[in-house]
Amino acid sequence: MFNIKKLSTQFNQAIEDKINQKTKPLGALGQLETLASKLATIQSHKSDSWAERIDISKPSMFVFAADHGIAVQGVSIAPSAVTQQMVINFALGGAAVNVFCRQFGWQLDVIDAGMIESIANDYGVKQQRLGCGTSDFSLEPAMTLSTAQQGIELGAELISQRIGEGADLIAFGEMGIGNTSSAAAIMAAILGLSAQECVGAGTGIDAATLERKQQLIQQALDLHKGTLTTPINILAAVGGFEIAQICGGILAAAQAQVPVLIDGFICTAAAMLAKQIAPNVQDYLIFAHCSEEQGHRKMLQWFNTEALLTLNMRLGEGSGAAIALPIVQAAAGFYNDMASFAQADVDDVVN
Amino acid sequence: MFNIKKLSTQFNQAIEDKINQKTKPLGALGQLETLASKLATIQSHKSDSWAERIDISKPSMFVFAADHGIAVQGVSIAPSAVTQQMVINFALGGAAVNVFCRQFGWQLDVIDAGMIESIANDYGVKQQRLGCGTSDFSLEPAMTLSTAQQGIELGAELISQRIGEGADLIAFGEMGIGNTSSAAAIMAAILGLSAQECVGAGTGIDAATLERKQQLIQQALDLHKGTLTTPINILAAVGGFEIAQICGGILAAAQAQVPVLIDGFICTAAAMLAKQIAPNVQDYLIFAHCSEEQGHRKMLQWFNTEALLTLNMRLGEGSGAAIALPIVQAAAGFYNDMASFAQADVDDVVN
Repeated sequence: MFNIKKLSTQFNQAIEDKINQKTKPLGALGQLETLASKLATIQSHKSDSWAERIDISKPSMFVFAADHGIAVQGVSIAPSAVTQQMVINFALGGAAVNVFCRQFGWQLDVIDAGMIESIANDYGVKQQRLGCGTSDFSLEPAMTLSTAQQGIELGAELISQRIGEGADLIAFGEMGIGNTSSAAAIMAAILGLSAQECVGAGTGIDAATLERKQQLIQQALDLHKGTLTTPINILAAVGGFEIAQICGGILAAAQAQVPVLIDGFICTAAAMLAKQIAPNVQDYLIFAHCSEEQGHRKMLQWFNTEALLTLNMRLGEGSGAAIALPIVQAAAGFYNDMASFAQADVDDVVN
Repeated sequence: MFNIKKLSTQFNQAIEDKINQKTKPLGALGQLETLASKLATIQSHKSDSWAERIDISKPSMFVFAADHGIAVQGVSIAPSAVTQQMVINFALGGAAVNVFCRQFGWQLDVIDAGMIESIANDYGVKQQRLGCGTSDFSLEPAMTLSTAQQGIELGAELISQRIGEGADLIAFGEMGIGNTSSAAAIMAAILGLSAQECVGAGTGIDAATLERKQQLIQQALDLHKGTLTTPINILAAVGGFEIAQICGGILAAAQAQVPVLIDGFICTAAAMLAKQIAPNVQDYLIFAHCSEEQGHRKMLQWFNTEALLTLNMRLGEGSGAAIALPIVQAAAGFYNDMASFAQADVDDVVN
């Protein structure tokens, strides 16, 4: 379905040489160097010639919102009504992700992937509704296989379209009361872990609610045990409409050889599904921040990677990805614009 | 000499209320909330009324360069000549700190605090020379007490002047072959640790050179043992001209109640001296990044704080502080511009 190319090593030497000739000790820019190398590798493959410059001029953030049947079980600090209220807040520009997108220059799309109630068109929220919230996955599958598939396709189409319009860095955010439950269940299913090892406090539930949430998700994992065999089946059984569309968007961006900045716990669950569908997708992923949500660190270990930022955030919305953009720009900036030893007439002390 | 006010708790409640009424779960923005609270507290005290907005509109970076007598002992990857070459690189805009300052909007001053050779005036480097490099502190005091004092005053005067011109966030960078040796010795003297616990690989020396560097600095600590009793004495015995001026600049900024963004290992050594001179200075300090240099983490522990970024960088120049500016701006941004629950008509689920 998706044809995602593995990145070869053919441009590595040229990229490494360029970085090592910058007026700094070898490796002294740490993760910025790793990041510049990754961005240059992706863009070299996209253009099929060594990228002398990294171009990040149209970063695009997509916030997908949806509701979750499991929210009726009281596993969150808020009721499902807050999903819609926050989407209106996004539409009016008042949420954290809006502030950070304006500050750092992201183009922002907000998409209704399936809230309980849609909102009026004049809010400018794109409608890609897969239903009025998922079913309660502690009792039955969250959605059908064909809905899961449709979600992937809708997400992929939107991101492909924006890439066609010039988007050159893609990030995702999400809003959906109950979606840490869904993300934790996806994580547990893929990693073969218990609910206890994956379920965390989300945006701030108390200890008693946390225990109930863990039990509920363990029950759900037991209920769906026989069907949690493929990524699409996992998505249908315990996923969410926003997670399906983000998963599709990640796959489309990777197919188009555009780097993807992954936000926190929920977006990383979507990225895990995307990697299960097409392992090469990881070559295009950059992890923006390590969430306070307890399972996120284990997810990052599964990807064998580190996040750029660790700021004890646990908000979602794409907020962590939004504030990581300047770090990505710094990596591109030093790669593009720092002088080499020869240009600056500085003794090359590193070779 | 410096009159630095301790920040009271009088504005804490108003600031906390404002942050907690933003449309997000309590505490969900993690370190950004701590940072916003610190900035708002400083600016409230400066204006003597609750800061409803945080204003960071003129961030100013000061890179001080100087040479170190100890460099002749071969404790660095590069000879002292590279200090001047890199300062010319700064003047021409080609170094990492230049790239990041341009990207993120810092006003940048480069100051010769005492390189072996000065450079021509037309490079635009400010001359505040305390000499032609320090003396080799493994053999004798790096500078006299009066020179150390003069360095503090020169740094303080320049920063006071820029604050008078509107600078509202101050950061420092440094360039000086050999200056990790000086910073490690300052750290060892203040913390009462051995050289081995404080001396690291700097910008990338090999294991044999590292061992020699540790021995040399232990010898120096033993040599100056009797005089390492006050911060000014420590600065004179084992410090550097750039470190003296940065220390003075930090004190002047704190006296003017302007927040200071502290870069890596060398700037943190200067901040340790400043705190020994005037303990209240810490109320005004924000630590930008945790360096790869092994001693830096211990320094941050001494300040009982965490840095905003950990990107495995070990470049100096102020590069870590420069790229932390967007994080500071994100903290100010959410404080200033995020909607409250009431404004957004979102159910306040947190109280």
